[in-house]
Amino acid sequence: MKVSIDGLNKAFESRIRLGIMSALAVNDSLDFNSLKEFLDVTDGNLASHLKALEKEGFVQVEKSFIGRKPNTNYTVTALGLRAFQAHLAVLEQLILKNKNAK
Amino acid sequence: MKVSIDGLNKAFESRIRLGIMSALAVNDSLDFNSLKEFLDVTDGNLASHLKALEKEGFVQVEKSFIGRKPNTNYTVTALGLRAFQAHLAVLEQLILKNKNAK
Repeated sequence: MKVSIDGLNKAFESRIRLGIMSALAVNDSLDFNSLKEFLDVTDGNLASHLKALEKEGFVQVEKSFIGRKPNTNYTVTALGLRAFQAHLAVLEQLILKNKNAK
Repeated sequence: MKVSIDGLNKAFESRIRLGIMSALAVNDSLDFNSLKEFLDVTDGNLASHLKALEKEGFVQVEKSFIGRKPNTNYTVTALGLRAFQAHLAVLEQLILKNKNAK
Protein backbone atom coordinates (compact mmCIF):
# COMPACT_ATOMS: atom_id res chain seq x y z
CA MET A 1 0.00 0.00 0.00
CA LYS A 2 1.39 3.36 -1.01
CA VAL A 3 1.00 6.12 1.54
CA SER A 4 0.34 9.40 -0.18
CA ILE A 5 1.94 12.32 1.57
CA ASP A 6 2.74 14.14 -1.65
CA GLY A 7 -0.44 16.16 -1.42
CA LEU A 8 0.37 17.44 2.05
CA ASN A 9 1.46 21.05 1.87
CA LYS A 10 4.67 21.91 3.70
CA ALA A 11 3.25 25.36 4.42
CA PHE A 12 0.66 23.75 6.71
CA GLU A 13 2.89 21.27 8.54
CA SER A 14 3.13 23.30 11.72
CA ARG A 15 0.14 22.88 14.00
CA ILE A 16 0.09 26.64 14.54
CA ARG A 17 -0.34 27.20 10.82
CA LEU A 18 -3.04 24.53 10.73
CA GLY A 19 -4.75 26.41 13.53
CA ILE A 20 -4.41 29.80 11.82
CA MET A 21 -5.81 28.50 8.54
CA SER A 22 -8.61 26.69 10.31
CA ALA A 23 -9.57 29.79 12.29
CA LEU A 24 -9.47 31.99 9.19
CA ALA A 25 -11.39 29.48 7.09
CA VAL A 26 -14.16 29.41 9.64
CA ASN A 27 -14.25 33.14 10.41
CA ASP A 28 -14.58 35.91 7.83
CA SER A 29 -11.63 37.77 9.29
CA LEU A 30 -9.77 37.89 12.58
CA ASP A 31 -7.48 40.42 14.19
CA PHE A 32 -4.14 39.52 15.70
CA ASN A 33 -5.37 39.33 19.29
CA SER A 34 -8.32 37.11 18.47
CA LEU A 35 -6.05 34.73 16.60
CA LYS A 36 -3.65 34.77 19.50
CA GLU A 37 -6.43 33.97 21.93
CA PHE A 38 -7.84 31.22 19.71
CA LEU A 39 -4.52 29.51 19.37
CA ASP A 40 -2.96 30.26 22.74
CA VAL A 41 0.45 31.16 21.30
CA THR A 42 2.98 33.92 21.89
CA ASP A 43 3.01 37.11 19.81
CA GLY A 44 6.33 36.29 18.16
CA ASN A 45 5.37 32.76 17.30
CA LEU A 46 2.03 33.79 15.82
CA ALA A 47 3.55 36.71 13.90
CA SER A 48 6.21 34.56 12.27
CA HIS A 49 3.73 31.92 11.14
CA LEU A 50 1.34 34.59 9.84
CA LYS A 51 4.20 36.14 7.90
CA ALA A 52 5.04 32.79 6.34
CA LEU A 53 1.44 32.23 5.28
CA GLU A 54 1.24 35.76 3.91
CA LYS A 55 4.38 35.14 1.88
CA GLU A 56 2.73 32.08 0.33
CA GLY A 57 -0.24 34.22 -0.62
CA PHE A 58 -2.51 32.20 1.65
CA VAL A 59 -3.33 34.95 4.11
CA GLN A 60 -4.07 38.62 3.51
CA VAL A 61 -3.30 41.39 5.96
CA GLU A 62 -5.28 44.59 6.34
CA LYS A 63 -4.18 47.37 8.62
CA SER A 64 -6.70 49.88 9.86
CA PHE A 65 -7.55 52.00 12.87
CA ILE A 66 -10.24 51.48 15.45
CA GLY A 67 -10.46 54.98 16.83
CA ARG A 68 -6.82 55.82 17.27
CA LYS A 69 -5.72 52.27 17.88
CA PRO A 70 -4.07 50.41 15.01
CA ASN A 71 -5.78 47.14 14.18
CA THR A 72 -4.40 44.35 12.01
CA ASN A 73 -6.91 42.07 10.38
CA TYR A 74 -6.23 38.75 8.71
CA THR A 75 -8.32 36.97 6.11
CA VAL A 76 -7.71 33.80 4.16
CA THR A 77 -7.26 34.26 0.39
CA ALA A 78 -9.07 32.14 -2.20
CA LEU A 79 -5.71 30.56 -3.03
CA GLY A 80 -5.13 29.83 0.64
CA LEU A 81 -8.54 28.32 1.12
CA ARG A 82 -8.10 26.02 -1.87
CA ALA A 83 -4.63 24.96 -0.76
CA PHE A 84 -5.83 24.35 2.79
CA GLN A 85 -8.81 22.30 1.67
CA ALA A 86 -6.58 20.22 -0.61
CA HIS A 87 -4.26 19.63 2.35
CA LEU A 88 -7.18 18.60 4.57
CA ALA A 89 -8.47 16.25 1.88
CA VAL A 90 -5.16 14.37 1.89
CA LEU A 91 -5.18 14.25 5.70
CA GLU A 92 -8.71 12.93 5.57
CA GLN A 93 -7.63 10.09 3.28
CA LEU A 94 -4.81 9.26 5.66
CA ILE A 95 -7.24 9.22 8.60
CA LEU A 96 -9.67 7.01 6.70
CA LYS A 97 -6.94 4.51 5.88
CA ASN A 98 -5.96 4.35 9.53
CA LYS A 99 -9.53 3.79 10.63
CA ASN A 100 -9.74 0.71 8.49
CA ALA A 101 -6.49 -0.62 9.93
CA LYS A 102 -5.55 -2.59 13.04
CA MET B 1 -14.92 29.65 18.24
CA LYS B 2 -11.85 28.20 19.85
CA VAL B 3 -9.59 26.22 17.56
CA SER B 4 -8.09 23.29 19.40
CA ILE B 5 -4.58 22.51 18.30
CA ASP B 6 -3.44 21.51 21.78
CA GLY B 7 -4.10 17.87 21.06
CA LEU B 8 -1.90 17.88 17.99
CA ASN B 9 1.34 16.08 18.72
CA LYS B 10 4.51 17.91 17.72
CA ALA B 11 6.14 14.56 17.03
CA PHE B 12 3.76 14.08 14.09
CA GLU B 13 3.93 17.56 12.58
CA SER B 14 6.22 16.58 9.73
CA ARG B 15 4.42 14.98 6.84
CA ILE B 16 7.14 12.35 6.63
CA ARG B 17 6.42 11.32 10.22
CA LEU B 18 2.70 11.27 9.46
CA GLY B 19 3.50 9.01 6.53
CA ILE B 20 5.74 6.71 8.58
CA MET B 21 3.16 6.35 11.34
CA SER B 22 0.40 5.81 8.84
CA ALA B 23 2.36 3.13 7.00
CA LEU B 24 3.29 1.37 10.24
CA ALA B 25 -0.23 1.59 11.62
CA VAL B 26 -1.59 -0.07 8.52
CA ASN B 27 1.15 -2.68 8.11
CA ASP B 28 2.31 -5.13 10.80
CA SER B 29 5.92 -4.22 10.20
CA LEU B 30 8.00 -2.70 7.41
CA ASP B 31 11.68 -2.71 6.60
CA PHE B 32 13.62 0.41 5.79
CA ASN B 33 13.46 0.00 2.03
CA SER B 34 9.72 -0.59 1.96
CA LEU B 35 9.16 2.53 4.04
CA LYS B 36 11.46 4.45 1.76
CA GLU B 37 9.56 3.27 -1.28
CA PHE B 38 6.18 4.02 0.30
CA LEU B 39 7.13 7.53 1.20
CA ASP B 40 9.45 8.40 -1.64
CA VAL B 41 12.08 10.04 0.57
CA THR B 42 15.85 9.93 0.81
CA ASP B 43 17.67 7.52 3.14
CA GLY B 44 18.96 10.29 5.38
CA ASN B 45 15.63 12.01 5.68
CA LEU B 46 13.77 8.80 6.50
CA ALA B 47 16.44 7.65 8.97
CA SER B 48 16.36 10.90 10.93
CA HIS B 49 12.57 10.90 11.23
CA LEU B 50 12.55 7.21 12.22
CA LYS B 51 15.16 7.93 14.88
CA ALA B 52 13.03 10.77 16.27
CA LEU B 53 9.95 8.52 16.45
CA GLU B 54 12.00 5.76 18.05
CA LYS B 55 13.25 8.22 20.67
CA GLU B 56 9.63 9.09 21.52
CA GLY B 57 8.94 5.39 21.99
CA PHE B 58 6.47 5.42 19.10
CA VAL B 59 8.41 3.14 16.78
CA GLN B 60 10.34 -0.02 17.54
CA VAL B 61 13.37 -1.20 15.60
CA GLU B 62 14.38 -4.80 15.10
CA LYS B 63 17.59 -5.78 13.38
CA SER B 64 17.94 -9.21 11.87
CA PHE B 65 19.53 -11.03 8.96
CA ILE B 66 17.91 -12.31 5.82
CA GLY B 67 20.53 -14.84 4.78
CA ARG B 68 23.67 -12.80 5.21
CA LYS B 69 22.04 -9.47 4.52
CA PRO B 70 21.21 -7.25 7.48
CA ASN B 71 17.57 -6.25 7.64
CA THR B 72 16.04 -3.52 9.78
CA ASN B 73 12.38 -3.82 10.60
CA TYR B 74 10.13 -1.16 12.03
CA THR B 75 6.90 -1.61 13.93
CA VAL B 76 4.65 0.87 15.68
CA THR B 77 4.45 0.51 19.48
CA ALA B 78 1.16 0.48 21.40
CA LEU B 79 2.12 3.88 22.80
CA GLY B 80 2.82 5.16 19.29
CA LEU B 81 -0.45 3.86 17.94
CA ARG B 82 -2.45 5.49 20.72
CA ALA B 83 -0.60 8.80 20.30
CA PHE B 84 -1.05 8.71 16.54
CA GLN B 85 -4.75 7.96 16.79
CA ALA B 86 -5.22 10.78 19.29
CA HIS B 87 -3.42 13.10 16.87
CA LEU B 88 -5.63 11.98 13.98
CA ALA B 89 -8.75 12.47 16.09
CA VAL B 90 -7.84 16.13 16.63
CA LEU B 91 -7.10 16.55 12.93
CA GLU B 92 -10.44 14.98 12.16
CA GLN B 93 -12.23 17.52 14.35
CA LEU B 94 -10.38 20.30 12.58
CA ILE B 95 -11.40 18.90 9.20
CA LEU B 96 -15.02 18.56 10.31
CA LYS B 97 -15.11 22.16 11.47
CA ASN B 98 -13.78 23.30 8.13
CA LYS B 99 -16.34 21.27 6.24
CA ASN B 100 -19.11 23.10 7.97
CA ALA B 101 -17.54 26.45 7.15
CA LYS B 102 -17.63 28.77 4.13
